[in-house]
Parts: sequence; structure tokens; C-alpha cells
Amino acid sequence: MIELGIGVIGYGFIGKVHTYAYRNLHFYYDPVPARVRLVGVCTSRAETAERARAHGGFDVGVTRIEELLSRDDVHAVHICTPNALHHDAALAAIAAGKHVYCDKPLARTVEEARAMGSAAAASDLACQVTFHCRFVPALMRAKQLIERGVLGRVFHFRAAYLHAGYTDPARPMSWRLDKEQSGGGALFDLGAHVVDVVRYLLGDVRRVHGSLRTFIAERPAPDGSGPRPVEVDDLALMQVEMNDGSVGLVEASRLATGSNDQLRIEIHGQKGALQFDLEEPGWLRVYRAEGPEEPYGGERGYTRIECMQRYPKPAVWPGPKFVPGWLRFHAASVHAFLTHMVEHSPASPSFADGVACQEVLHAVQQSSACGRWVDVARES
Amino acid sequence: MIELGIGVIGYGFIGKVHTYAYRNLHFYYDPVPARVRLVGVCTSRAETAERARAHGGFDVGVTRIEELLSRDDVHAVHICTPNALHHDAALAAIAAGKHVYCDKPLARTVEEARAMGSAAAASDLACQVTFHCRFVPALMRAKQLIERGVLGRVFHFRAAYLHAGYTDPARPMSWRLDKEQSGGGALFDLGAHVVDVVRYLLGDVRRVHGSLRTFIAERPAPDGSGPRPVEVDDLALMQVEMNDGSVGLVEASRLATGSNDQLRIEIHGQKGALQFDLEEPGWLRVYRAEGPEEPYGGERGYTRIECMQRYPKPAVWPGPKFVPGWLRFHAASVHAFLTHMVEHSPASPSFADGVACQEVLHAVQQSSACGRWVDVARES
Amino acid sequence: MIELGIGVIGYGFIGKVHTYAYRNLHFYYDPVPARVRLVGVCTSRAETAERARAHGGFDVGVTRIEELLSRDDVHAVHICTPNALHHDAALAAIAAGKHVYCDKPLARTVEEARAMGSAAAASDLACQVTFHCRFVPALMRAKQLIERGVLGRVFHFRAAYLHAGYTDPARPMSWRLDKEQSGGGALFDLGAHVVDVVRYLLGDVRRVHGSLRTFIAERPAPDGSGPRPVEVDDLALMQVEMNDGSVGLVEASRLATGSNDQLRIEIHGQKGALQFDLEEPGWLRVYRAEGPEEPYGGERGYTRIECMQRYPKPAVWPGPKFVPGWLRFHAASVHAFLTHMVEHSPASPSFADGVACQEVLHAVQQSSACGRWVDVARES
Amino acid sequence: MIELGIGVIGYGFIGKVHTYAYRNLHFYYDPVPARVRLVGVCTSRAETAERARAHGGFDVGVTRIEELLSRDDVHAVHICTPNALHHDAALAAIAAGKHVYCDKPLARTVEEARAMGSAAAASDLACQVTFHCRFVPALMRAKQLIERGVLGRVFHFRAAYLHAGYTDPARPMSWRLDKEQSGGGALFDLGAHVVDVVRYLLGDVRRVHGSLRTFIAERPAPDGSGPRPVEVDDLALMQVEMNDGSVGLVEASRLATGSNDQLRIEIHGQKGALQFDLEEPGWLRVYRAEGPEEPYGGERGYTRIECMQRYPKPAVWPGPKFVPGWLRFHAASVHAFLTHMVEHSPASPSFADGVACQEVLHAVQQSSACGRWVDVARES
Repeated sequence: MIELGIGVIGYGFIGKVHTYAYRNLHFYYDPVPARVRLVGVCTSRAETAERARAHGGFDVGVTRIEELLSRDDVHAVHICTPNALHHDAALAAIAAGKHVYCDKPLARTVEEARAMGSAAAASDLACQVTFHCRFVPALMRAKQLIERGVLGRVFHFRAAYLHAGYTDPARPMSWRLDKEQSGGGALFDLGAHVVDVVRYLLGDVRRVHGSLRTFIAERPAPDGSGPRPVEVDDLALMQVEMNDGSVGLVEASRLATGSNDQLRIEIHGQKGALQFDLEEPGWLRVYRAEGPEEPYGGERGYTRIECMQRYPKPAVWPGPKFVPGWLRFHAASVHAFLTHMVEHSPASPSFADGVACQEVLHAVQQSSACGRWVDVARES
Repeated sequence: MIELGIGVIGYGFIGKVHTYAYRNLHFYYDPVPARVRLVGVCTSRAETAERARAHGGFDVGVTRIEELLSRDDVHAVHICTPNALHHDAALAAIAAGKHVYCDKPLARTVEEARAMGSAAAASDLACQVTFHCRFVPALMRAKQLIERGVLGRVFHFRAAYLHAGYTDPARPMSWRLDKEQSGGGALFDLGAHVVDVVRYLLGDVRRVHGSLRTFIAERPAPDGSGPRPVEVDDLALMQVEMNDGSVGLVEASRLATGSNDQLRIEIHGQKGALQFDLEEPGWLRVYRAEGPEEPYGGERGYTRIECMQRYPKPAVWPGPKFVPGWLRFHAASVHAFLTHMVEHSPASPSFADGVACQEVLHAVQQSSACGRWVDVARES
Repeated sequence: MIELGIGVIGYGFIGKVHTYAYRNLHFYYDPVPARVRLVGVCTSRAETAERARAHGGFDVGVTRIEELLSRDDVHAVHICTPNALHHDAALAAIAAGKHVYCDKPLARTVEEARAMGSAAAASDLACQVTFHCRFVPALMRAKQLIERGVLGRVFHFRAAYLHAGYTDPARPMSWRLDKEQSGGGALFDLGAHVVDVVRYLLGDVRRVHGSLRTFIAERPAPDGSGPRPVEVDDLALMQVEMNDGSVGLVEASRLATGSNDQLRIEIHGQKGALQFDLEEPGWLRVYRAEGPEEPYGGERGYTRIECMQRYPKPAVWPGPKFVPGWLRFHAASVHAFLTHMVEHSPASPSFADGVACQEVLHAVQQSSACGRWVDVARES
Repeated sequence: MIELGIGVIGYGFIGKVHTYAYRNLHFYYDPVPARVRLVGVCTSRAETAERARAHGGFDVGVTRIEELLSRDDVHAVHICTPNALHHDAALAAIAAGKHVYCDKPLARTVEEARAMGSAAAASDLACQVTFHCRFVPALMRAKQLIERGVLGRVFHFRAAYLHAGYTDPARPMSWRLDKEQSGGGALFDLGAHVVDVVRYLLGDVRRVHGSLRTFIAERPAPDGSGPRPVEVDDLALMQVEMNDGSVGLVEASRLATGSNDQLRIEIHGQKGALQFDLEEPGWLRVYRAEGPEEPYGGERGYTRIECMQRYPKPAVWPGPKFVPGWLRFHAASVHAFLTHMVEHSPASPSFADGVACQEVLHAVQQSSACGRWVDVARES
């Protein structure tokens, strides 16, 4: 079996998640697509690099990306940094001939994203975005059913990614609230995921009407000193029109009191309907309007299809009986990345998916500024 | 269209419910099986009788049952009194040639019930018991699906009727807590319904192991004077074995904190499963274990079938979109009674069903006393 | 007790519902605010008028509104006709000194609605709109909790009224699909209710961005002859901005496959959140973000508050245990109307509420036409 | 930080689960109670031992338990074998001075279990049973709330552990269906867990009335040859009476079509109620009957308390927002075991808990045989 060496850039929350995924891939999948060696981890300071190395079980801890990119035994790097660093790191990695797995959103701006997409397209590398929701079995099943025509013509849908983490005005500033570092707020952080899920299931977005709001307009500085202006949205509301003519309402909120980590989507078609909620990740609800009708009522209703770890192949551990946790979806995403590298197949979700998502986010920002519908400009 | 005259004996809570049902039948059903005249209502005192007459829209209010039974224009009587009076009233009504619609449980004792059942069987009258849960559309649908073999061989089930109305020890005594008046407690009041639902869906009970408990053993007298001993159970737990070999756990509780009016049943068969909860009366959950399996998972899961007012025929008002209320089920039960009278068909649920249910309740009382399984003695 | 005479104009589905409400008020409420006499019903033809009279238990059936309005014993009329007739009937009734209970939406156009609102305001009559959702106990409870400050500052919300009745293109034309008769489609039929619920709970709408769609653009004529163009929307999507600065997404759909009669609202505030769904009308979900926090987690979570018939006063039949049906909410609405008549209190929801709702619907139509945000023009 | 060496005996499904837990402890917890070295794994054949060693990351793979027990660097062993081997392995391990973590049920018979319990009690070793459900945050929260008196006096409860894995008669025999190897069927496999959850939350069981059934009485041999008799139950129904006077119905089923891995418990007390379902492991439903009542209804209802990874301390990764998977509970159980070893505190759940559980299972077997209530004999 081939051995692939992995470097991880950034070892905060999401860096740990990816590392966990690699370290447990052989539990979840048998066989694994490749043997993995965790070669190195890169953080900003020597002290944190050594701690990350020991924690994640890497061979080395470094403080400069080049130290990973220059190694022949590093075949792929994971970009787990704040958004502001994605662009430079990805271009450098691609230039160095490394496969790239980049956290979402792809970049801070559509220009940055397009440059990354072009570089990926010009290479023969697997360049994947961390849209791990595409690896929730219930959403994979949803896509399968839609492709089979279970919904028929889609009329309309609603989707939302709801968090409650910023309702407290005393929560201080962080890079996620800094426009320069993040490029956007709820729209970029949560909207990227929900827009990608919409694209994954229903195809491309033609135009949008968006509203961005910043309800909590100032917050304490990270060091506790006086209030700083918040430059990014904490709520994004969108009307979207899809290429197929269907329309939908989409939300991304950091102020959705009562939600923990709730990505929902509901789709209404002529022949059926679907419902999904990430807070019940093991089930997909499917409604078939057609069916053997009887004089006084058929058996219409939502079926709550069990979608634990049974789909897609290969069958996985710990088995289809058990409720999967959130970490499991990242393991499946990393499994797909490894497979693409081994099989020299195009990554999916690819940097091109990342660019297309960014183009929607960009159009939402433009629409919010001008108060009109904005066509989603596709990279020519 | 034939006109049928109705008398109602007792005008407490349930007497009002039946009267409501008659008065609204032509809203719910079109056409109705017969034109109804509310001839008379009987209560214990002239003052309440007049109030009942005016409230329900009866021609007359009387204080002696005979005043109703002696009238030629009364074709049927509803027995809506405490349990202790069911037996005498029913026998008198049958003797007078009146159809009878009797509240549940049929009587205080299996002997009383059997006498009532015998009299009904010897007549050609429609004699029905108020097992209105048989007229919840979702349970009618459940029966239909079971008869079609959706469950296959039934392995086991659990059923419960849960109320919370007696958790407060300060709630005073009433006829429902008086053994002489009621014949039993939670077992008779709630257990009668849930045992009937079990019989309706799954057939006859072969034997039972029961436990009756009285957690709150004394309560204030109705007049607020000192504590009186409670003679009846406030909780009944049962293991039941059915004629078909399936087994189940059944509960009737007046102490089920957190429940309002919760009759639940879940059935597990080799080919499928069913779930129902009266607190969501418009839906039946059905699981099919069989189906087109795919390599990595089929579409197994509970379907929440819409069962508003769409089943059975005839189509009804206000239409299948709207959540039905509890009163609606009583209207359907009264509709069935009228139909039986008009068509001279045997009532269903009949007094024989009432007797069979009472035989189960009786066996539970015996089992609780002796601590062993008790066969359900069937009337020879 | 005072006796009030009622006339009903139109005896289709909703006319029957109102009549049912009157005929059962004394079951649901004790005492009732007034003794009611169902004086007359008006339909378009003598034959249907007589049938309506007999069905509803009215004294007379007539074919001209004036026959009701000229009677001294008619104190109030219910307008249960297609939308096109509301305006003239209401103005005539008010001119005749009759209280008016008018189906929603108030009229076909904002001009008609404002004329009706002005006439009502200039009178001392109770003029109410059939916004019966305001009488769903769970929504009354929601309003009570919001007024107590349970939500704190409201950030955002989403609301929808979802039906599936028009997904079949073979469903023929009707007055509801005729712009001249109805004034609008899903927006007017369902949007009127959901916009009113939003106003009821959260106050006035400042501006809207709306999109109206007609997915099924032609349908058979009612007589089965060739296709006719559908002139009204079957889907309305709205972004709304409220006077208090909160924002929301609102939908009205006749194409929401999988829904029966689903009015949903979810509100996120700084201190709490609310959820309601008309398909579970007996419960309100309330989330309190504040509370006694413990080191490792408090007791945060949605509480599914029981809201059967317990709120508001007076306590009602058949009691708080039982799931209420949809008809029940109309009875409560009619109870409020009677009370306003008896107490000479302003109706609520009033014609002014009907006008305010119509102004929002109008702004949505304008916004959809121009593709921009439109301020809700308030009648000066 | 202390380093502890671990040996794992048996590397089937559950052996992998425990190994996974150790390998990821430093992700989930920071700091960890001890540094862990996975010293050795023992399986029955050299080939599987080497495969297990490589898969789990152990230093050595061996085929005789003694090879682990004789090593000074092994401080604790996990017994992950079929039930028949628990007794001998545990006694040998305790004799060798090793801490023991033994899969459930503790043994095949109450005699075996008591011998194991005595040996554990006579040592100063941490001897824990894999009752990992005690580490589901929602059940820990349930225990906390019960101890605070939220339920008041407990009246009754129902609990069930429902699987559907054996509904297919073509599923062949295995050690789990062999009485000699397993000691019991659904009762031992699933009943052990649900009885332990009942004991964890509500205390000791005084007496039981049990019914064991074997619906599918023969199955193919593992090699596909002709049918073999199934000697163990596939369904266990129990009535239980607790030391505090409360009563309950308890089930363990391998034939519960429609369930995946569904451990449910509902408890009704005078002051409140609780509901839990392992298929929604992140939430506990709590009902408080008391509270600020208002004239027409308070705010009574079940609160769905969020119980992700927030309880108990220490705060854990990946954070309270994310739905935990089933593996997570095993990690928490192993964390507790390590803590007990490091702190020289008594293990919990201890071998004494395993014995007490086994005594209940034994009484159920006796009761099922004699058809009467059986007192749970406590080891003197």
C-alpha cells in the first residue's frame, strides 16, 4: 500500500479535527486508501509547534510553511489557518507540487479564491475544500435521491446554518470578527457551508438578493480593553434563484439563540420533499407525493430514513446502528481526499466548488450593499 | 331520510361530548346516516335536567330513565353515568327495545358486563361501547395496515394510557376513586381504552400478569373533610400474552407526570413496526423492514403517515389538511352507531367487545392479587 | 343575558366554519358572552340559500345582502364570500349599523382595504378580521411571553405558511387563482395569515423585499376546457424589516409538497427563542438563554409548553388535556367577536389590523415587480 | 505525568472500541489523567494478534493472557472477550495485581459474577465494568437532577433497550446465541445495560417478574449447515419493583423492528418527569410539574436540555455545539477508569455494580421459569 505524508498548517480547533481524522481512518475504514504518515505540523511559534507535534503525533513541528513544502515526504498539506492565510499558503503548496486540503471559505475575496482555483486547475493535484457536510451520510443520500428524480421539478427550498455563539455582546473580538482576517462574518463562516450544501444538492445559483446585518456592532478587544467596532455581519439573509428556476431562502446566523450547530435544509418538489437537520445527523426525511393512493388516503408522509454510517461504501465502523458524531464527517471527508490523491481523480468538493461558493458569497455582499438582485458572476 | 330519536342519560363531561357529537354530525358528514332528534336528557335532579335540556337542545329534561325508555320517539339511549349505573340502565333500555351506546368500561364487574353482553346478544339492537379510540383515523389506518400484513408475524408491543391528573395528593375523592362506584381505578378508566386498542389491533388476550398499585392511598373527602382511603389503583402495569403468541407490556397510569392524554402503542413485527401517540393524533408511524435494499443502505425508516380526517370514508369536513381535535373522534364513533342503527348491522365496538375487555381487566385484578399469570376467562 | 342576531354572507367552507363556531360556543365556553340567534344566511341562489338555512339552523335563507342588513334583529354579519365581494358587503353592513366579521384578506387591494378600515374607524362597531391564528392558545402564549421580555431584543425570525394543495397542474382554475376575484394568490390566501401572525407577535413591518412566483402558469378551466393562464402567485418569498430593527424571512406557498396546513414561526432574541408549528397546535417551544448556569452546563433547551385550551380565560371545555382541533380556534375567534360586541370594546384583530396586513401584501407585490426593497406605506 | 500500560484481551468489535478510546483520549480531554502506553493485545491466534497489534498500535501481540499479566509495564487489562472467558481472565488479572476493565455482563452466571466481585473487593485495584451508558452526558445530567430532587417521589418508569438485529431467521448462530458462551440472550446483552441504567438512576431493584421468549427458535449454524436450536432469549420483558417502592416496566429486545440502538428510559415522579433516548444522545427531556402557575396555565412542558459534551467536567473537545457519537461515551468511560487508577479511587461502575446487575438478570431468569415474582437475592 502506498504511503502518503501529510503536513498540517495551523493546529487550532480545525487542525486538530483533521489530525484526528487521519489518526483514526483505519478504525473507520478497512481498508484505507493509503497508509498515512503525519510528517509535520506548522504553527506560528516554536513552542506551540512542539506542543502540536506531540499532541498530533507528527514527526516534526515547524514554524514556516516552507519547512513542510520543501520536504519530499510531504505529499499533501492541510490549510487550517485563519482565512487571510489561505491564499498564499495554497498557492505556495500548489507551486511546490503538494496536494491541498483547505478550510472553508476558500479565501477572503472572490479574487483570491479565483487565483487559487486557477492554480489548482492548472495543476494535476487534488485540491479539496473542507465542505465536510457533503460527507454527512444523510446529505449524500439526499443527493442520490434527488438525482434519481424523487423530488421531480424543484419549486422552492429553505436552508439555514444557525449558531448562537455570538449573542453575548461581551464576547470579545477575534479574527473571525475582523474583516481583514476573515473577509466576512456569519456569511463567510456559516454561509459558506450552507451555500455549498445548496449547490451540492441543487446545482448553481443564478442570482441572489442578500441582506447582511451586524446587530452587535461593537465588542471588547481580545485583551479586554475598550470596545472595538465589529466590521463583519452577524446575520446573512438571502433569497436565491437557481439555474433550474427554483428559488429559496437561505440564512446564516451567529445570533440564532436556541441553536447549537444547526444546518437545515428543506426542499419542495413537484413529486416529493426532503428535510435535513444537522442536529439529527443520522436521518434524512423524505416525502413522496406520488404513490399508491387509496380512496380515502394513501400512505403519504415523511419517511425518516436511517442514514448512520451505511452510505456510501465501504461499510464502516462502528456500524450502522450507532449515531455518528460530528467528527465522523471530517473523517469521511479526509478519506475522500486520500482516495483522490491515490486514484489521481479530481478532488470533490474541489477548489472550483470553493470558487463557485465564494462567488455566491461575493454577490450577497454586493446585493446587500446595493439593495437589489445581483447575478452571480461566474469566472470566465 | 329516517329520523332517529336520542336520549342521553347523564349530562356530565361525557354526556356533553356525545350531545356535541350529534349536534355537529351534519357538519362533519354529508350525508348523515339519519336525521337525529335529541329527544330527552335524564339527570338526577329536575334543576340539572332542565339546565341540561337547554344546554344540549333536547326536547325534554327528565329525572327518571323510564321517562325516556317509555317514549316511542326515543330509539336509542346513551349511558353517560358513573360506572355503577351502567348495568341497570343498559338492561332496562334493552328490555325497552332501545339501542344502547354505553360509556366504558362496560360495568363494574365481569359479571355485570356479561349480563349486559348477553342481553345485547339476545336482542337485535345496536349495543355499542364508547371506545372512541377505534375512530381515530390513525388507528383505523393501523388496523388496515396490520390486516394487509405490513407487520408480518408480530413479536411484541408496548402500549400505555398515561394521565397525570391524580399526582396531587390534595385532589379530593370522587366516584372514580370509589371502588363501589367505579369498579376500579386507572385500570378501569384508562386501562379499558388501552386494552381495547390492543384487542382492536392485535386480537384477543390469552393471559395476563398484572400489578395494581395505589401510590396515593388517601385523599381528602369531596367536602374537604378529613382523609379517606382510596380503594382503587392509580397505576396498572401488565404483561400480556396474545392468542397469536405475541407479548406486550401495557400500562394505565393516573400518575404519569408529563403526560396530558397520552395513549401510545408501538408494535414490532417481523416485517414492520407501527407507532401511535394520541398526543399527535393525526399521524401514524409505519416502518417497513423489507424493501428495495441497496448495496449501502436502502430507505428504511419510519414513515409518518398523514391520517387527519381522510380515512375512512366518507370524506369529511373540515378536510384532510386540518389537525383533528379529540371531539372529532367521538363524532365518528356516534356516526358509526347511527349507521349501525339504520343498517341494522351489529354494533362495533359491540357490548361483546366491552365484555372481552372487562374480562381482561378482571384477570389483571386477579393476577395482581395472586402474583401469577392468570388466563383470561372467556364467557362460555 | 343579551341576545345577538347573526347573519352569515356566503355559506361555503368558511361560512360553515363560522356557523359551527356559533352553534358550539356554549359547549366551549361557560358562560358565553351573549345568547346568539342565527338569524339568516345569504347565498347567491334561492336553492343554496334554503340548503344553507337548513344546514346551519338559521331562521331564514336569503339571496340579497340587504335582506339581512335591513333586519333589526341582525346585529352582526359575517362576510364569508370570495375576496372580491368583501369591500361592498362590509361598507353596506357598516352603513346599516351592523358589526362585521370579515374573512381575510380584508380586500383585493390596499385601496379597498383602506376604505373599509376608514368606515370601521368612523363607526363604533366591532369590525373584526378572521385572523383566527391569533386565537391559537400557543400563539397567545407566545405573545404573552414576548411582552414579558422573555426574548429580549429580537434579532431575527423566520415564518412560513405552507400548503401543498396546488402542486398538481391538473387542478383547475378557481376564484382563488383569478386575480380579479382574489387580488392575489398564495400571498393573499396564506401570506395574509402569516404576515398577521408576524405583526401580532412582533409589531409593524417597516419595509419588505418580496418575490412572487407562478410556477404553474396555466391550469384547466373549471369546466374542464382548455388551459387558462394563472394570474396570481403560487409562491411568495419575503425579506422583512420590522420597526424594531429585527429582520425576518417569510414565505407563503401553495407548492410546499409535504405540508398540510403548516404555519410556522421561529424567533431568535438575545435572551430567548420561540418556535411554533400549526401542525402541532397544542404546544409552544420556548428557549431561555439565560438561567442558572452551572460550571459544566445548565439546563438550557427548548421547553415544549403545553398550550391546549388552557389559555386564555375563561377555562374551557373539553379541558386542557385534549389536543385541540383547528375548528376550535375559530370558536375562540368568534367568542372574542361576541365579547367585543357585548362590551363595546374595539375588535381585535380589527379592520385596522386587516389594513396594516394588506399594506404589507401590497408592498410585497410592488417589491416583486421592481426588484427592490419597498417601504410599507402606512395609511396617513 | 504518570504513564500507565494497558493490555487488551480480545480485539473484536469492542476491543477496537476501547483501543480507539485510549488513542484519542488526549483529543477529547486536556489534560488527560495519565499518559497511556498500549503495551499489548491478546487474541487467540498469532496471526490475528499481529494484525491487532498493528491496527491498534500496541507494542506486542500475544496469544496467552499470561504474557500480558506477567509484564510489569502492564498496569491494567481490558477484557473484551465473549462472556464465557470473563471470569477466568478477571480472576487471573486481579491475582496478578492488574486493574481490570471488563465488558458487560460481568459473567455468565451470578456465581461467576460474585466470585469476580469478591476478588475485586478484596483487592485495592480499580475494577470497572463497561457500562458506558453511565457516561452519556444526558444520563449523567439525569442522575444529577434526580439527586437534586427534581422528580420528587418516583412513582413509575419504563425502560427498554431495543435492537432489531435478529429479526431475520436466516441470521446464523453465534456465540451470543449460545447459552454456554453467553449465559443469556437479549437479557444479558441488552438487558445488562438497561438494568444498569435503571440502577444508576433509581437505585437497587427489590424484586422482578420476568418473561423470557425465544421467538426464533432455530437458526442456521455459523458454517451454514442445518438449523441449530437457539438456547437463549431474544426478548426479555420485566416488571420491576425498586427498593424505594417505585415500579417499572423494562424490556430488552433483539426483535424490535424499527430500532437501531435505542436505549430509552422515562421516569414519572410526583414533581417531575424525565425522558431519554440513546438515538438522540445529546438531549435529556425534563418536565417540572411545579413552577409558577398562572391562572390559565403556566409554562409546564418538557424541556429538551442540551447535553452534548458539556457535562461532566472537564470541558472537552470538540465542544458543546456538536452532536456526540457513540464512540464518545466509551472514551468518557475509559477516562473515568484511568482517573480511578491514578487517584486510587474505587472504580465506578464497579464490579459490585456488575454483580448487582447480574443478580437482577438472574432473578429475571428464575422468574420467567416459575411465573412468579422473584426477590433479587443480594450477595450476603
